[in-house]
Amino acid sequence: MKITLPVIVVNFKTYTESIGEKGLKIAKAAEEISNNTGICIVVAPQHTDIRLIANQVNIPVFAQHIDPYAPGSHTGYILPEAVAEAGAVGTLINHSEHRLILADIDETIRRAKEAKLKTIACSNNPEVSASICALSPDFCAYEPPDLIGTGISVSTAKPEVVTKAVELMQKINPQVIPLCGAGISTGKDVTAAIKLNTKGVLLASGVVKAKDPKAVLKEMAEAAQKTL
Amino acid sequence: MKITLPVIVVNFKTYTESIGEKGLKIAKAAEEISNNTGICIVVAPQHTDIRLIANQVNIPVFAQHIDPYAPGSHTGYILPEAVAEAGAVGTLINHSEHRLILADIDETIRRAKEAKLKTIACSNNPEVSASICALSPDFCAYEPPDLIGTGISVSTAKPEVVTKAVELMQKINPQVIPLCGAGISTGKDVTAAIKLNTKGVLLASGVVKAKDPKAVLKEMAEAAQKTL
Amino acid sequence: MKITLPVIVVNFKTYTESIGEKGLKIAKAAEEISNNTGICIVVAPQHTDIRLIANQVNIPVFAQHIDPYAPGSHTGYILPEAVAEAGAVGTLINHSEHRLILADIDETIRRAKEAKLKTIACSNNPEVSASICALSPDFCAYEPPDLIGTGISVSTAKPEVVTKAVELMQKINPQVIPLCGAGISTGKDVTAAIKLNTKGVLLASGVVKAKDPKAVLKEMAEAAQKTL
Amino acid sequence: MKITLPVIVVNFKTYTESIGEKGLKIAKAAEEISNNTGICIVVAPQHTDIRLIANQVNIPVFAQHIDPYAPGSHTGYILPEAVAEAGAVGTLINHSEHRLILADIDETIRRAKEAKLKTIACSNNPEVSASICALSPDFCAYEPPDLIGTGISVSTAKPEVVTKAVELMQKINPQVIPLCGAGISTGKDVTAAIKLNTKGVLLASGVVKAKDPKAVLKEMAEAAQKTL
Repeated sequence: MKITLPVIVVNFKTYTESIGEKGLKIAKAAEEISNNTGICIVVAPQHTDIRLIANQVNIPVFAQHIDPYAPGSHTGYILPEAVAEAGAVGTLINHSEHRLILADIDETIRRAKEAKLKTIACSNNPEVSASICALSPDFCAYEPPDLIGTGISVSTAKPEVVTKAVELMQKINPQVIPLCGAGISTGKDVTAAIKLNTKGVLLASGVVKAKDPKAVLKEMAEAAQKTL
Repeated sequence: MKITLPVIVVNFKTYTESIGEKGLKIAKAAEEISNNTGICIVVAPQHTDIRLIANQVNIPVFAQHIDPYAPGSHTGYILPEAVAEAGAVGTLINHSEHRLILADIDETIRRAKEAKLKTIACSNNPEVSASICALSPDFCAYEPPDLIGTGISVSTAKPEVVTKAVELMQKINPQVIPLCGAGISTGKDVTAAIKLNTKGVLLASGVVKAKDPKAVLKEMAEAAQKTL
Repeated sequence: MKITLPVIVVNFKTYTESIGEKGLKIAKAAEEISNNTGICIVVAPQHTDIRLIANQVNIPVFAQHIDPYAPGSHTGYILPEAVAEAGAVGTLINHSEHRLILADIDETIRRAKEAKLKTIACSNNPEVSASICALSPDFCAYEPPDLIGTGISVSTAKPEVVTKAVELMQKINPQVIPLCGAGISTGKDVTAAIKLNTKGVLLASGVVKAKDPKAVLKEMAEAAQKTL
Repeated sequence: MKITLPVIVVNFKTYTESIGEKGLKIAKAAEEISNNTGICIVVAPQHTDIRLIANQVNIPVFAQHIDPYAPGSHTGYILPEAVAEAGAVGTLINHSEHRLILADIDETIRRAKEAKLKTIACSNNPEVSASICALSPDFCAYEPPDLIGTGISVSTAKPEVVTKAVELMQKINPQVIPLCGAGISTGKDVTAAIKLNTKGVLLASGVVKAKDPKAVLKEMAEAAQKTL
């Protein structure tokens, strides 16, 4: 399950609109748009829905979070091997709504690699983006917390901060693929993000809470396509 | 999906032995023993396996943990409604390996009720057991942390502490059903627990890591049956 | 250093207005009012100011928080013995802005007793108040989080909830002395709190951020005096 | 209060041997040795002892931890401005025993600068050391957790890991001054640490729990002096 660039990552969060069959429907829409446009779309459902969705769609499914533990006595925590077994091929790490202790980000990235999971580590400003890149995740998604969920896009509202974040990331570790997120809700936002040298976007409400998620995904994927 | 007493609750933790199909096999063994003996056996798999197991067995499936949040922006957390939608009928709360802030235990129990999930709140000593009972979970499982995973059973090693815990719980809130756990690995341990006025046991490695989980479950369920 | 009832507890929080010499000035005002009225006033400065204030005033000084640890390798945490050695005679526990894991509240109360510190454990609703009383702190201060810092007093805005909280606390453990807090800023608020069967109030901004903290303390202490 | 290199940083932790007057005695010994050798010795007492010690010794006093908050409603947390007002000129951050969320390390370093506090951020391996250096603390102290408190010195047991950590740190941010710690208990350990291109050591039990802390400090400072 290869992740091609640019990529659109859809975080299902814990929205009512994305639980169970409703999430599956969004995932199937994403699969269709991805097939039609050739643009990679990743979906990140809740842990309880990973298996349901991974079984029925042929696009990359990510977890929203994993814990840094090895198999053992860790009641209620999320084992990298368990999300992989359920069909996930990657995971978000350190999302703005689920921040981790630095040493745990490091260990989580290591554990994810052992479980053959790709990692998208999230950051809240350019300095933290740089800091995360020193830990070698596959992707680093810069998301200013004050724009998350607002519909005001980071790529249009703070273009110079995205540029600064991408520059710092590249300087620290050019292997890490830069993404950005927060407020992304239109094809234009996606275009802007890619023009700022990111390789894609991380978003949630812009698609999940849209009246017509498939239409928004289509607009975004086509915008991404035009940047190629 | 009614929970009858006495009950045997099997926590799958994040053991290698209980991921995915392996967990399903243990759940099916539990279902068979439960059918044969009439003793209620609850299984608590990892979140990623709840749907898989709830779809294929006809015994109560619990989550190992839920978070106190309402639907919304809580990336990577475990929504009560999501585990319910996946097929869980209850949840562990505040397990010794996943302790919660007091106000969150209170809120989690409230949220679980809203999602129609039964709650087993765990405690580490008699005082904390009493404290938890003031928050009105359905069950309170007292588990001394120093015995968890040892194979030395709380019901034989610390009978007087179990008795004290049960007395305190009943005094604070006689509606809460007392369980005990830690080190439970034989039918004899189950018998001892029930004789100490608990209504069942919470266990993990004693079954999950046993050479023959079904044989252990059979021994335990038959021991429970004899106390009726 | 005996704590007599009713008691007025002034939490200095981390306000600019209460750091160092500024906090000492408020503490001296509290001492003077306490001497003049016979009403016990407790001050809870930041950890760095405990020694400064305890050395120079003759009223009870409390810590705002302690950690549940025994002496050892716990860099940056607050040892019960250390705050006692600096002159504190008690501590707040589980303040709404500093909530603790349930098992840690239990252990912190135990550790405080070992260090001969009185404990005021805070709660956010009647159920949590009851839950805390099962752990036998010396005092339980019920503070609805939505009123903290508003100047809208719990004792006038939610009298029936205070009454319910006090009743639940007394039922669980009549040894625990009930206090209430949130929004307390006038003598009238103190009177109302005591009429609702609490034995005093916990407050912060009402005094610390007042134009004339001494005048507010005088009004409050005189109001408390009239209830005797 | 200038910090000259190489530097010896003594973390008092929450040891019984370093509370109050006992800590002051160790600080006075450190001051005497520092005056005699010209080697900078920093002491990091508990928060309750910062003022006591800073008032009476003329060497740099650091906090063991600060919180990332601005003045306000943060009951029981450690305000940068409060430790500065009490006499501290710097602080440890993210000690192995007190690990922080990545975004909080970033914010804590920023808040420390605002309060004119020097920062020693701690790390547990070379990658995390690099990650921390991207956040521009004044110092980064690499301490492998498995050697802390053992008396087996990082500089003799893991010289190649110290070298790797220092190289990574310098590559990411040559402004950050590298230190190392864990198991440092003799002058020889200090010599070894400095030969590995660190600019000093962070230690605790090696001095605080020594039979004769002053003698150990003398041996260490003289060893440091010989590297000049």
